[in-house]
Amino acid sequence: MFESAEIGHKLSKEEYDAQESILRIQLLEIQEDLKQAPFPVIILIGGVDGAGKGESVNLLHEWMDPHYLQTHAFGAMSDEERERPEAWRFWRVLPPKGRIGIFFGSWYTRPIVDRVYGKTRNIDLDLDLVRINAFEKTLVDEGALIIKFWFHLSKETQALRLNSLTKDPKTRWRVTDTDWQHFKLYDKFRRISERALRTTSTGEAPWLVIEGADKRYRSITMGNYILNSISKRLAASNAPSVTPPNPFIKIENPYTILDTLNLSQSLTEEDYKQQLEKYQGRLNLLYRQAKELGRSVILVFEGWDAAGKGGIIRRVTSALDARDYQVIPIAAPSDEERSHHYLWRFWRYLPRVGRVTIFDRSWYGRVLVERVEGFASESAWMRAYTEIVNFEQQLHDHGTLVLKFWIHIDPEEQLRRFQLRQATPYKHFKITAEDFRNREKWNEYELAANDMLERTGTEFAPWYTIEANDKKFARIKVVKTLCDRLKASFKK
Amino acid sequence: MFESAEIGHKLSKEEYDAQESILRIQLLEIQEDLKQAPFPVIILIGGVDGAGKGESVNLLHEWMDPHYLQTHAFGAMSDEERERPEAWRFWRVLPPKGRIGIFFGSWYTRPIVDRVYGKTRNIDLDLDLVRINAFEKTLVDEGALIIKFWFHLSKETQALRLNSLTKDPKTRWRVTDTDWQHFKLYDKFRRISERALRTTSTGEAPWLVIEGADKRYRSITMGNYILNSISKRLAASNAPSVTPPNPFIKIENPYTILDTLNLSQSLTEEDYKQQLEKYQGRLNLLYRQAKELGRSVILVFEGWDAAGKGGIIRRVTSALDARDYQVIPIAAPSDEERSHHYLWRFWRYLPRVGRVTIFDRSWYGRVLVERVEGFASESAWMRAYTEIVNFEQQLHDHGTLVLKFWIHIDPEEQLRRFQLRQATPYKHFKITAEDFRNREKWNEYELAANDMLERTGTEFAPWYTIEANDKKFARIKVVKTLCDRLKASFKK
Repeated sequence: MFESAEIGHKLSKEEYDAQESILRIQLLEIQEDLKQAPFPVIILIGGVDGAGKGESVNLLHEWMDPHYLQTHAFGAMSDEERERPEAWRFWRVLPPKGRIGIFFGSWYTRPIVDRVYGKTRNIDLDLDLVRINAFEKTLVDEGALIIKFWFHLSKETQALRLNSLTKDPKTRWRVTDTDWQHFKLYDKFRRISERALRTTSTGEAPWLVIEGADKRYRSITMGNYILNSISKRLAASNAPSVTPPNPFIKIENPYTILDTLNLSQSLTEEDYKQQLEKYQGRLNLLYRQAKELGRSVILVFEGWDAAGKGGIIRRVTSALDARDYQVIPIAAPSDEERSHHYLWRFWRYLPRVGRVTIFDRSWYGRVLVERVEGFASESAWMRAYTEIVNFEQQLHDHGTLVLKFWIHIDPEEQLRRFQLRQATPYKHFKITAEDFRNREKWNEYELAANDMLERTGTEFAPWYTIEANDKKFARIKVVKTLCDRLKASFKK
Repeated sequence: MFESAEIGHKLSKEEYDAQESILRIQLLEIQEDLKQAPFPVIILIGGVDGAGKGESVNLLHEWMDPHYLQTHAFGAMSDEERERPEAWRFWRVLPPKGRIGIFFGSWYTRPIVDRVYGKTRNIDLDLDLVRINAFEKTLVDEGALIIKFWFHLSKETQALRLNSLTKDPKTRWRVTDTDWQHFKLYDKFRRISERALRTTSTGEAPWLVIEGADKRYRSITMGNYILNSISKRLAASNAPSVTPPNPFIKIENPYTILDTLNLSQSLTEEDYKQQLEKYQGRLNLLYRQAKELGRSVILVFEGWDAAGKGGIIRRVTSALDARDYQVIPIAAPSDEERSHHYLWRFWRYLPRVGRVTIFDRSWYGRVLVERVEGFASESAWMRAYTEIVNFEQQLHDHGTLVLKFWIHIDPEEQLRRFQLRQATPYKHFKITAEDFRNREKWNEYELAANDMLERTGTEFAPWYTIEANDKKFARIKVVKTLCDRLKASFKK
């Protein structure tokens, strides 16, 4: 979940100034509308030390009308609090309808910290998270809007920040021993937070992870998200005297995880042939080893039309014995499939022990094409992230290796390939008018793909993004990744 | 949850015959409507051995059109099944839209049995149940109707049944060693099933516990519930060509847990005085002991208007030091309370360590008056059972003793008391025209009270039903129960 918050998002001073002035006005306006609304707004601020949590809270107080905004910070428990159930300290300060409550530190802090310091086991953390979900659900069921921010810093950025603060005598005091102690636990903290965020990023109350390194970027992103969420919720509540939601300022061309891919990577024909032989040979050995160990493998391929999924899959399967694998191309569902739960058709095809199943498109259709084309309602695709992660968790728990590949090209390359298909008689069947129409929604698909990578990339079923403007490069990267992951899986 | 399924429900042959003939026609008709419906129906059959699970499944096949009905029984796992995640065996046989799937044994069996035989711990069971809730939620979110039956037998009834089967040479074969082995684990099985049912009796997919001793009663109850559930779901789905739901056959004056109370119990003035002194003295000692141990106590009083709650509460509090207790009368919420979650006003009043808080009416208003008067939507009060149980679980986990009393009188006694209030000048203020109006909804309130007792009576926060036609009897029973429970709580 954190990959997209480690890519160096930035905003220039000019852009920030322009946006901030509009944002502040809109936030004040929406706060005015909110006063009459039949629901409270709960904003949670969590994340990595030094990622700007405190500054962000201060900024919100500067931007908004503090009369209708209250911030609660949670440190050590008071006597009063210790004598009641843990949730009491949160219940007592929940905001009433029409108001905003900011929770700086929240019901997530204790469960995550206890786990990081080894005071609890994974199973305890999981039960804590279940209780958190139940708590948030009852708030949302009664109308509350819960907005959850997680401010993130990559390990490198955090190290740089601590070092630079320490070097300057004027800021040295800000770095405490606890900060360095925390830093030593960075990896553990990251892993455990990921587990917590994944489990609690529900349709009702999803997390937004924000890269915290650049103050301007994180502030505008937070402000816009608050504005957007409250406005959507106001519209849904049919609150009477509400002014129509303002058009939102959007950060033009937001910098996403897909933007970080270097699509110019390529291989010479010679390198390609040599490496293909090498890695296919390796793959053959490794998958047979997996088979002997009784492990099954599921590969998922998603990506743009004409990205070259078919060609990649053929390079994988030619290293396997035909008796051991199955390729499942996913198109529109059959009548029978349509009469079942959308996941049913995928459960059907789960491999037996020692087999490989390759999905050419998959259950991710729900959060890609069905989302963009409006075949699934927003609540349906929002809840699908959780459903899908649960599904893959079950596969993993059962010992199946699940690997997911996003095959990425840019729109120019796609157009080139479409035109080539039109010009090549035996490739004609592969191209329709609809393919061209879909190109108009490139940005929407890209947004959906980014959300998907962010919300469903897990330690047990990771996404691999494959730069595929050069087909040869893409094929080698997939086969090689597959070898690496298979090999690594034997160690567990 | 099982108390109301241990009171000897029965149906006469005449009543059964009359009802069955109508029920069968209606079931066939609704199956016809269901064929075009955009959702599947999943019926789970679970429960105690010998409570009629198998016979009930057979009966459904007899009553309904077997073309659109499929039963799946789950025994030991096949090779095929073992090689996939546990849920695979269930996913593969889920019914398509418009059909009914009966699951004889289900995803509940393995988690409960493993726990009973000590193969897993409570925390494992809890996580299994969380996964079950997630599984059922995804089915319901996609439209499925899930109907869950638990057939129950009291320990005595089960012993009788096993013995009588064993005595008859013709039926002896039906009682296996496993049956007797299970019987030895009856108490454990009951406790663990209760935990499982409570946790998974969600608003989306609640359990219905049916007393299994009388074949006629259990069959009609099951049939009616299926009819009712499908009909409600059809109406909600706006399925096009659906005939309007039939008026339901109801079992007249269903025999409920409240009906089992013997309201003629009474005490003489002399006995009353003597016992009151004795138990109040005891209570004083015990609550001071609790205080020293740092335990807090929450008492909840619910019951009919004029049932005598106030008088009972005064008999409790006069045994306590005024500095140690608080009585919270719950009437209509204040403006401030109304602007919060409905549970917020109760969280406010949680006692500190060593204190006693007495709620004169409580959070149960949501599933009583708010349900009956339509102030809360059906989905809101259905989900409240879970919310309330979660709330009380948190109190219990924190070490608070939670006891709940339902003060019960019959309508005749209530009328007598109302008239007395009218005739007594200083009691005039206690009676309004609304009190008389509420009497018209006696049956609805009684139904709501029974559901409440069934769905929120837990091992950690039990309900005590108090026969209160005689005020003296009621007061003594409450004070005595309180002593007993306080004392028992010290042992843990």
